[in-house]
Amino acid sequence: MCDACVIESVKQQMLSRRSFFRAAAVGTAGVAAAGMGIAPAALAAGHAGVTDLTHELHEEFPTFFGQQQFFREQKFNFAEHTFNLFELRVNEHTGTHVDAPLHFSADGLSVAELPVEKLVVPLCVVDIRERASADPDAQVTPDDIKAWIAANGDIPENACVAMLSGWAEHIGTDKFRNADSAGKLHFPGFHVEAAKYLLEETKTAGIAVDTLSLDHGISPDFATHRAWLPEGRWGLEAAANLDKLPAKGATLVLGAPKHRGGTGGPARVFALV
Amino acid sequence: MCDACVIESVKQQMLSRRSFFRAAAVGTAGVAAAGMGIAPAALAAGHAGVTDLTHELHEEFPTFFGQQQFFREQKFNFAEHTFNLFELRVNEHTGTHVDAPLHFSADGLSVAELPVEKLVVPLCVVDIRERASADPDAQVTPDDIKAWIAANGDIPENACVAMLSGWAEHIGTDKFRNADSAGKLHFPGFHVEAAKYLLEETKTAGIAVDTLSLDHGISPDFATHRAWLPEGRWGLEAAANLDKLPAKGATLVLGAPKHRGGTGGPARVFALV
Repeated sequence: MCDACVIESVKQQMLSRRSFFRAAAVGTAGVAAAGMGIAPAALAAGHAGVTDLTHELHEEFPTFFGQQQFFREQKFNFAEHTFNLFELRVNEHTGTHVDAPLHFSADGLSVAELPVEKLVVPLCVVDIRERASADPDAQVTPDDIKAWIAANGDIPENACVAMLSGWAEHIGTDKFRNADSAGKLHFPGFHVEAAKYLLEETKTAGIAVDTLSLDHGISPDFATHRAWLPEGRWGLEAAANLDKLPAKGATLVLGAPKHRGGTGGPARVFALV
Repeated sequence: MCDACVIESVKQQMLSRRSFFRAAAVGTAGVAAAGMGIAPAALAAGHAGVTDLTHELHEEFPTFFGQQQFFREQKFNFAEHTFNLFELRVNEHTGTHVDAPLHFSADGLSVAELPVEKLVVPLCVVDIRERASADPDAQVTPDDIKAWIAANGDIPENACVAMLSGWAEHIGTDKFRNADSAGKLHFPGFHVEAAKYLLEETKTAGIAVDTLSLDHGISPDFATHRAWLPEGRWGLEAAANLDKLPAKGATLVLGAPKHRGGTGGPARVFALV
């Protein structure tokens, strides 16, 4: 094996063992009570508060690689054909979008294969706005997760843990990518150790960021993507309106696209409070 | 990576995923239920959870016009680039998808402009399976709506009224389009008078069908589209799994895409019960 392969193999084996022990732990703990508490009657009556965590997608939506990733072509128009219709062309990782395990693994779950039980989940919002406003390279660390738990209790099973860095407010400006003169991006993300902490200590289903990447912009290696996604977890990038939500108590609905073999894609994402 | 490494990596990832989803199987449904404020006992009785109303989208997904409307091109692959990514090309009106008012009006609301309060709504399921199994040209009529109301009470404000014709079970076969020798399609839909009844007598937000069109297949003029959509209402076409839901009491979450100026698009749709 090449060196990189040996490292990868060792990492995978360690991750496998962790998964095994997590499985064993669940076996004894039984069904966890998330207690997010939205009454079905309130939903059916249309009274639950709905927050849209989705940015509008358009041709100039900022992208990680800096080039246009969304295009549309009008195929029918009302004046001529009595109806309007567009054909869309889009890179899967554009706009408010999902990363499926398959995005960073050889044969991980596609976006169509994510179990629906992992798409309607308790939402935990980790607020690092103060640090991020002083340092655009800031990261969510294990200490941030521990502080959230100390304040709010355990992270519920199948939760989404979201980074609120305040970056969504920069969406219409160059600050969203925040490229330096060398082209390096500067925006917050999850530290790989925070991802590993969630893998080892919790049964979190997904992590979300209000920036362009799960990893902070200057990451040289997508370490957080590589640690997180191959473990059967999902990511949500470029989430909007996380600042409108409580630290705990909301339910995230991840309207992931469902195209066969997809590595992710633009999603409609709501929070129900 | 070398082949042996890729195989090893894949194997380890599969083991990891299995462990994660074994763990999940113990607790997911409970969490989903708890997230909706439903007691685990209700779950045990099979009453609670999330139902996916979305068909998987793929290249051969049946279309109204009969031609392929979904395409994908792999831009990055794991073996070569260490991550996978596709570019998608899709006609907005493909798969389980939304019709926005703009689809059949000069300047109606685009799919990005639909108020979120009209996307998380009470779901009313109108079952015409018996009639549709005898007559593929069957339609939901005002009498069907009245019968639903007589049995279930008034249609709630901002509801989605869905036709359950049983057509979703034909999705993998020619029966889904059901074209005759002249190319005419034969599948159920909403009669224009039913749409008008809902406009006049209720504050329904959207109508849904488990077929390829709001109008039944042989409609010569899209009369229901033309009556319904320009009134600021939405439609949902090719919904799945409506047969898994009660006539009343579920909440529909319409994960409509949010691209600027869009006339609709593939959506992720859930029902919460």
